[in-house]
Amino acid sequence: MSWSPSADSPDEQMELMAREAADNPRVLALGGGLPAPECFPRQMLARAFDKLLSDRELGDQALQYGWPEGHGPLREFITQRLQARGIDVQTDEVIITSGAQQGLALAVTCLESISPQRSVQVDAATYPGALQLFHDRGFAATTDASSIVYALPALSLPQGLRMQFTQREALLSDQSLTLIEDDAYAELLFDGVVPRPLAADARDRTWHVGTFSKVLCPGLRVGWLVPPRGQERAALAAKREFDLQTSSLSQSLTASYLSLEDLDVRLKSLRAFYSRRALALMDAIRSHFPAWKFEVPEGGFSLWLLPDAQVDETRLMACALEEGMNFDPGSQFRPNGAASPLALRLCFSFNNEANLQTAVARLQRAWQRLQA
Amino acid sequence: MSWSPSADSPDEQMELMAREAADNPRVLALGGGLPAPECFPRQMLARAFDKLLSDRELGDQALQYGWPEGHGPLREFITQRLQARGIDVQTDEVIITSGAQQGLALAVTCLESISPQRSVQVDAATYPGALQLFHDRGFAATTDASSIVYALPALSLPQGLRMQFTQREALLSDQSLTLIEDDAYAELLFDGVVPRPLAADARDRTWHVGTFSKVLCPGLRVGWLVPPRGQERAALAAKREFDLQTSSLSQSLTASYLSLEDLDVRLKSLRAFYSRRALALMDAIRSHFPAWKFEVPEGGFSLWLLPDAQVDETRLMACALEEGMNFDPGSQFRPNGAASPLALRLCFSFNNEANLQTAVARLQRAWQRLQA
Repeated sequence: MSWSPSADSPDEQMELMAREAADNPRVLALGGGLPAPECFPRQMLARAFDKLLSDRELGDQALQYGWPEGHGPLREFITQRLQARGIDVQTDEVIITSGAQQGLALAVTCLESISPQRSVQVDAATYPGALQLFHDRGFAATTDASSIVYALPALSLPQGLRMQFTQREALLSDQSLTLIEDDAYAELLFDGVVPRPLAADARDRTWHVGTFSKVLCPGLRVGWLVPPRGQERAALAAKREFDLQTSSLSQSLTASYLSLEDLDVRLKSLRAFYSRRALALMDAIRSHFPAWKFEVPEGGFSLWLLPDAQVDETRLMACALEEGMNFDPGSQFRPNGAASPLALRLCFSFNNEANLQTAVARLQRAWQRLQA
Repeated sequence: MSWSPSADSPDEQMELMAREAADNPRVLALGGGLPAPECFPRQMLARAFDKLLSDRELGDQALQYGWPEGHGPLREFITQRLQARGIDVQTDEVIITSGAQQGLALAVTCLESISPQRSVQVDAATYPGALQLFHDRGFAATTDASSIVYALPALSLPQGLRMQFTQREALLSDQSLTLIEDDAYAELLFDGVVPRPLAADARDRTWHVGTFSKVLCPGLRVGWLVPPRGQERAALAAKREFDLQTSSLSQSLTASYLSLEDLDVRLKSLRAFYSRRALALMDAIRSHFPAWKFEVPEGGFSLWLLPDAQVDETRLMACALEEGMNFDPGSQFRPNGAASPLALRLCFSFNNEANLQTAVARLQRAWQRLQA
């Protein structure tokens, strides 16, 4: 709203730059975490939509009010996939949410009521949307131990790494912990191994959150929440308050699409697709910034890049924008908002291989200007 | 979730009965507040969807992430209509929400932060989704005076009446009041006069909430919020936390639909359609229950019926269900949840004229059984 150019907080400046980047087709966006639009199944969605609207009952369901817990066939589909991954879950325990973000927001809303705890343990770098949510609801996000833990065990964000075995065991062995499991990227590990969720081993204390945003289309805003046993009613009441229900159209369309196409076939091709892009980005970084450090991502959309010198994050972002690229500043991923040590989240998901090369070359020019 | 038949709270029993009614095609639903599916513009939505997906840029917008404030063309459309109704509003002050319910939830979330007030003044009977929201967020809903007022000035729910001039003036003259204006049914007054919103006269202290759910399709979940001046950023931050953004697909599809069809032409026919159904329901009530009282609705989907004797609300609901009809129990609309004096919200929106007659005849049989 009224993103005034005189905005003086760093957050606002960054938001402004992110919007400028998005509005300018000349700017190659390596920030933002967007999936590749080439992968959106347009034709199949068009067929799925036709199938819906040409059937009176399906069409009515897609356009009418539904129950807060969501569309039955979609809940069944999700349940089966979660069961196959080891979660002891029934269809009536799955709540369809408006994306994974809403699953997190519902979990926090319920935890506000049932837990006196007002801090959440998070990784040193993690999903900014969760950090903002915790902060605004009065939960201090900290890397210190807390009895509530927010984790992306399947694949970390921004690094794109599996949780290590010892860390997973620590979360599972301490029965006093409440876990918020963000499973958003679980299906997008390049090797195709879908990790066993925490909810499979700590069902009664895990808020399990997933989404179709990364593997289908984010614009549908369809995700899910499996609350811990005994919390279903509270979560459903919160869902009803938030928005009554997730878009019937999005839910019906997703279910219809899933009846037409084999999701596992799609996932196989997505993993290969994003893996190629990850390789291209890593090649570009190694050739332009041989001394910068990153860990090879095991999946997802992004990697976490650590330059070998410190410059002001906001200035680097502004320079990069002038050169025609953007990235997500590391400070946004840190619970304390620290811009130092300097870190960049670079997404390989949205741009093709050639553009990834070009973007990193532009980043190099920006970097050199700041070093001069 | 797991709506156990042994549920013993009255609310749960009622929820159970509402679900039973919805699942049973033999039951004529005069509860629930659903619009008529015959009025859903299926063919035009199919055309709008084709138009979207056959254009690369529009298709990408419909399937990709968007900004939390929503889809530009849709915000412009809404802004123009609100301006035409006297609201001093610019496009960048309109936030697209996932239905009107989310607009209310965003308003309450912001008020939690900025106001020490923990009560909300409401009508003696009002929208249950708002009552539940206030209750769960720790705001006492009361008919007593409070500095926060929730109102449906354009058309009250459940009665379907315009706010009286003196009540409107009282809200506008007291500058200390914060107003939550639920404008959901404003376009559906049978005489086609669209009331001047409170936000037109108290822009800086009104949270103005609207929706396409009643005039297009509720399954899209597309509504809007105009926060008071100065609250845009807080509302947008809350929106981002809730679900990042409203379904891009729903927003794009709505905008595409609105570019193909004249909404005012549609509204004219909707008003005539629902007005006929209202007349049919009133005829049926007058013939089966000549002593029962109601006010003639001026628009919307429902009327508020006051029987001439008192019976247990839950028993009446159960009997009605056995006879093959349902209604919304009056207790759900009252801030104190009182079931007495007995009141029924009857919706004329969902059933055709013949079924409305049949449903009221069934209600009469249920009533007679309880009197026996």
